[in-house]
Amino acid sequence: MEARVHRIPANAPDDVAGLKALIDNGTIDPAAIVAILGKTEGNGCVNDFSRGFATATLKSALAGWTGRSQAELERSVVFVMSGGTEGGLSPHWLVFEARMSAAPANGGKALAIGAGMTRPFAPHEIGRMAQIEVTAEAVRTTMQRAGIAHVEDVHYVQIKCPLLTKARVVEAKRNRRTVVTEDSLKSMGYSRGASALGVALALGEVTLENLTDAMICQDSSFYSRRAATSAGVELMENQILVVGNSPTWSGDLVIDHDMMSDAIDTEALARVLDRLGIVPRLPIASADQERLIAVLTKAEPAANGLIRGSRHIMLDDSDISATRHARSLVGGVLAGVLGTTQLFVSGGAEHQGPDGGGPIAIIARKGR
Amino acid sequence: MEARVHRIPANAPDDVAGLKALIDNGTIDPAAIVAILGKTEGNGCVNDFSRGFATATLKSALAGWTGRSQAELERSVVFVMSGGTEGGLSPHWLVFEARMSAAPANGGKALAIGAGMTRPFAPHEIGRMAQIEVTAEAVRTTMQRAGIAHVEDVHYVQIKCPLLTKARVVEAKRNRRTVVTEDSLKSMGYSRGASALGVALALGEVTLENLTDAMICQDSSFYSRRAATSAGVELMENQILVVGNSPTWSGDLVIDHDMMSDAIDTEALARVLDRLGIVPRLPIASADQERLIAVLTKAEPAANGLIRGSRHIMLDDSDISATRHARSLVGGVLAGVLGTTQLFVSGGAEHQGPDGGGPIAIIARKGR
Amino acid sequence: MEARVHRIPANAPDDVAGLKALIDNGTIDPAAIVAILGKTEGNGCVNDFSRGFATATLKSALAGWTGRSQAELERSVVFVMSGGTEGGLSPHWLVFEARMSAAPANGGKALAIGAGMTRPFAPHEIGRMAQIEVTAEAVRTTMQRAGIAHVEDVHYVQIKCPLLTKARVVEAKRNRRTVVTEDSLKSMGYSRGASALGVALALGEVTLENLTDAMICQDSSFYSRRAATSAGVELMENQILVVGNSPTWSGDLVIDHDMMSDAIDTEALARVLDRLGIVPRLPIASADQERLIAVLTKAEPAANGLIRGSRHIMLDDSDISATRHARSLVGGVLAGVLGTTQLFVSGGAEHQGPDGGGPIAIIARKGR
Amino acid sequence: MEARVHRIPANAPDDVAGLKALIDNGTIDPAAIVAILGKTEGNGCVNDFSRGFATATLKSALAGWTGRSQAELERSVVFVMSGGTEGGLSPHWLVFEARMSAAPANGGKALAIGAGMTRPFAPHEIGRMAQIEVTAEAVRTTMQRAGIAHVEDVHYVQIKCPLLTKARVVEAKRNRRTVVTEDSLKSMGYSRGASALGVALALGEVTLENLTDAMICQDSSFYSRRAATSAGVELMENQILVVGNSPTWSGDLVIDHDMMSDAIDTEALARVLDRLGIVPRLPIASADQERLIAVLTKAEPAANGLIRGSRHIMLDDSDISATRHARSLVGGVLAGVLGTTQLFVSGGAEHQGPDGGGPIAIIARKGR
Repeated sequence: MEARVHRIPANAPDDVAGLKALIDNGTIDPAAIVAILGKTEGNGCVNDFSRGFATATLKSALAGWTGRSQAELERSVVFVMSGGTEGGLSPHWLVFEARMSAAPANGGKALAIGAGMTRPFAPHEIGRMAQIEVTAEAVRTTMQRAGIAHVEDVHYVQIKCPLLTKARVVEAKRNRRTVVTEDSLKSMGYSRGASALGVALALGEVTLENLTDAMICQDSSFYSRRAATSAGVELMENQILVVGNSPTWSGDLVIDHDMMSDAIDTEALARVLDRLGIVPRLPIASADQERLIAVLTKAEPAANGLIRGSRHIMLDDSDISATRHARSLVGGVLAGVLGTTQLFVSGGAEHQGPDGGGPIAIIARKGR
Repeated sequence: MEARVHRIPANAPDDVAGLKALIDNGTIDPAAIVAILGKTEGNGCVNDFSRGFATATLKSALAGWTGRSQAELERSVVFVMSGGTEGGLSPHWLVFEARMSAAPANGGKALAIGAGMTRPFAPHEIGRMAQIEVTAEAVRTTMQRAGIAHVEDVHYVQIKCPLLTKARVVEAKRNRRTVVTEDSLKSMGYSRGASALGVALALGEVTLENLTDAMICQDSSFYSRRAATSAGVELMENQILVVGNSPTWSGDLVIDHDMMSDAIDTEALARVLDRLGIVPRLPIASADQERLIAVLTKAEPAANGLIRGSRHIMLDDSDISATRHARSLVGGVLAGVLGTTQLFVSGGAEHQGPDGGGPIAIIARKGR
Repeated sequence: MEARVHRIPANAPDDVAGLKALIDNGTIDPAAIVAILGKTEGNGCVNDFSRGFATATLKSALAGWTGRSQAELERSVVFVMSGGTEGGLSPHWLVFEARMSAAPANGGKALAIGAGMTRPFAPHEIGRMAQIEVTAEAVRTTMQRAGIAHVEDVHYVQIKCPLLTKARVVEAKRNRRTVVTEDSLKSMGYSRGASALGVALALGEVTLENLTDAMICQDSSFYSRRAATSAGVELMENQILVVGNSPTWSGDLVIDHDMMSDAIDTEALARVLDRLGIVPRLPIASADQERLIAVLTKAEPAANGLIRGSRHIMLDDSDISATRHARSLVGGVLAGVLGTTQLFVSGGAEHQGPDGGGPIAIIARKGR
Repeated sequence: MEARVHRIPANAPDDVAGLKALIDNGTIDPAAIVAILGKTEGNGCVNDFSRGFATATLKSALAGWTGRSQAELERSVVFVMSGGTEGGLSPHWLVFEARMSAAPANGGKALAIGAGMTRPFAPHEIGRMAQIEVTAEAVRTTMQRAGIAHVEDVHYVQIKCPLLTKARVVEAKRNRRTVVTEDSLKSMGYSRGASALGVALALGEVTLENLTDAMICQDSSFYSRRAATSAGVELMENQILVVGNSPTWSGDLVIDHDMMSDAIDTEALARVLDRLGIVPRLPIASADQERLIAVLTKAEPAANGLIRGSRHIMLDDSDISATRHARSLVGGVLAGVLGTTQLFVSGGAEHQGPDGGGPIAIIARKGR
């Protein structure tokens, strides 16, 4: 197998012209697409319609190009839209293909991707241990299916997870079950947090003894360095995209990751670049910029209101959501070094890296 | 003479406790203060009351500490408040002192500062050639008074300039004069632009032949690489702070500058650091971080909607002002390298650097 | 013919469940739909994706229900989405049906509707006299086709008009034509203004001598009391919905209108109610509330910054767009009297009523 | 005694020119001022600096005009700044004077005002029963001192109450006490809620049996119909302004109140007007508009997301704070009837009226 990743600029949430052009000229085989991640230009908060508009447009277009039904697509392709392109961030799609490859694997490791999903969760399981354990199990299965034998070869796990609506809360009560919260917005955080801890459990970043219902979204000292999770109303299962390196895959792409300990931690960025064979200069060389295919990271305002001891105002600004501030900040930090603003910086980082920091993963073309 | 600069964190627009503490312990002589620049946490746009609140509080406090009247203070101290601490930017004051120095100048150049002002402008002069030429003249005079002999030794000129109110437009008409615009908000841009061109003219960055009434705020190909201008309603003259290096000043501070050609231009930053004797690493060394006293830059969204060919959405976002996006972006770019968020990034950059870019000046303690 | 109008609550921009339910139970014949107006919950400004999402969803659904192609639908159904449900305004659809009616017209007048369109405009015509005159002609034709003989029987004309994009500006230049503005956002205002003046010309509210290219969007003393215009990127012609009363239509609906002279002009509202046979009490009686089918109005902040001599801050607020303030204000003014928040209050009112005011039209069930 | 109330427009948070003019011409005696309420134009949320700027400016000016120290002023004058003039709301001051009056009371009741305060609260008391009971006691005392014998003659009680800061939480812990919350923002709500319940207890709207620590900010079925409370960081006691009618006061002003059951409840408004002898027409007569001196009300979005069964989006809008939506809505509802936008509509209405509604009080000149 060979994994291909395409970064395609988007002029609007419903702009699929760039994707279509690559399909038309044979660069992308629509039947091989396993995931589309989109950085769309809404506010990334509750009333962000750019995400739903993008997903609806992509599903409809892909249904036309592949002849598959939308229901089939929903089970075979992971769609994750991350709203919010504040500061310099540029709207774009990341299209992941898993192609049959005639070329034998060349001995080294190459980018490997796998998509999977859990069973549907009952409402009372969301944001609780059940979601953690079932997710961990599914991440392991997806790893194996993707031919990634060792957890240290997994560098990024994207999960799309469910949330609680009023109807689902009612269903739980009918079944004489409690729910983690009756507030839909908060349930998104719990579901993201439990899903991230599921990844952490699967990858050995935490052990089962660290985990209880009570610590989810409360004890931020346990987290994954490789999870990125987002909640959506349209599903009840966890959809999973595992990205790593494997000797059983071929191709010229590779992924690595590290963890930013705060929002301006360019040392973490430098370590990832270094491992990818890119000299972490200011900025990196043009030739190296061209090797970058996808930059995936999480941004959150530090809860203590400080960055390296200096006060930030993100949590005090009632005009702009704190997550919008955080994305634009991290986007600037990365763009100044990497020389591009096509960066997949998303928010909502419960149990995804330490408070104020977050995982950073980079997919790059192999160096010579 | 010796120039001292103090960077003091602010917990609110009216927080002068940090300044008071340094006066109380003898670090700052309130009578020696020639300028206070403040990065305050309002929106930096029309309805930003954090600027006025800060200025009123500082003037009142300084009047108490020095025994001078507020009117005297307004003519002897330059107060410039820049609103907007988006992303990670941290509210702070930059206090400039000009102290008598017993120590003889040590042969090398040291930081030199001078404050000055133009005559009051008539309303019809604002945003036009008269403002450019009178400003240029006053910048030259202020340079000389500050003992800076050569224009290449000037690295930063901060100007506070007037704007047109309805009353001032009426006054102009009564005198049978036209004004550059009857829109107060637009007049701020014209006044900033003309003031910046005045700096450019004084420093030889443009020649008089390049300049006409018609090109102001229209032809962005002419600009200063060292001007930072902001408009305020409370004055009719231009207040000027010239910052450079001079062999007639002593002390351990020095300033240098360069020009960011776009919002993510860390090559320009690297050049300034290099000239200051700081290795432009990712991030710079801790010891070098401590040498940084003030980082002064301008941020603006590129008018063509692009950063290095990728679309930005700053100008399309009707929820967040484009200048707020731009400041948070540039703040991130600089913070990732410099390891601090106490950065004086301000907006409104007419004729201050090229479209989408802007000047960057750094005041640092001399290296050994 | 019989005109039917349905007000259907929307839970999201893509919520067509309410419309589908009325089609499923036979209340609405999808083939008879001539227009759908939607109040959607985006910001109503540049980056409002709720409008495009709503239109795309409605077209796709309607294509499925009617078997017509999307291209056919675009020529036979007027879709107008107005973004912005600030304050208490409630997202909803207004679905207009023109049904064949067996019942003979009963002597009195009943609600009459007609849809039409102009020829496509060339880019250089947008926002200029050509757009005014061609629109006026098409409004007259649409009136006649709708069986409305007298202009005083027209009470509301909704127009969707084109705007200038960069590509269209380039096309104009290639044809050696100038355009009214090269700024896309401003071109929306010019196109809305010229379209409204086209309505005014057709309805005898202005005469051709009043109109020149130069007065469009400049001289606000000329306007229509019955036009509501909105610009969209997806068309080059003006799409027109004329709503009035006619003796040749049957049914139990009727429309009337008046003009609010400022944002809080409830005297105008009282006059409309009175003519509809509703006692303008505070609030109106419950039985009368049930007679109201659609309330259509335009809201804009007064340019002089005053409402009845008191300062408003809508134009000074850099955090919230002035049009958002204005819609929520007018929504409150109307809701307090009418007892409902399902009100079609839209912004962007160039030449649609006087500065700070706007037309108000109400479609109601006939009284007994 | 005679109570006078002056409504003075404000051009900015620090605009005291109008107040000064009335003092200069003898209309207002600065020594007689007992309270100044201000509707200022910030966002009314966390980072609203217009409130602090206004208070600082008023105190400094009043100190100059009366010769009193700022500390004296803080104990003798109640300053309450309410941020947020969304929609059409117009920034203004309401200045309350208590004058010695030579004229004997004329038999009828006239406006009576009284200012008072509680003892300082310990941090652990804030938002709990202690704050309720001590406030109730102080309200009763203030009533008596104001010569208001019966609770039904109290129509409006404005309270300014403390909040918890980090330092105060630390103090409580040092004293081995718990606090109601460690979150400053939430503590504002608890303090407002407990203060409102204190008013309710004093006025007999609730009984002590209804009240527990646990029900504060949880059980919204208990509330005052006459309280308006706001929290500020600068005090530890509750400052109280009681406004009612009393036969022992003279003057031509009178107050009445009612309770809006939801945001568009003009029936409640009509009842107040009616009791003031104003015919509740649409709009009220010009002569009646001139009788209105102050309109005081609270606005909050209904927690169930509905207004009379129709969905509102206030709680789903991540770009505009829900309280900003609510104020502009209620401002519109009232302005349409009353013909003015100088309305004191404030947010944060815990236990001040039912969910989504709130008290409305009007001070008017007596009719003939």
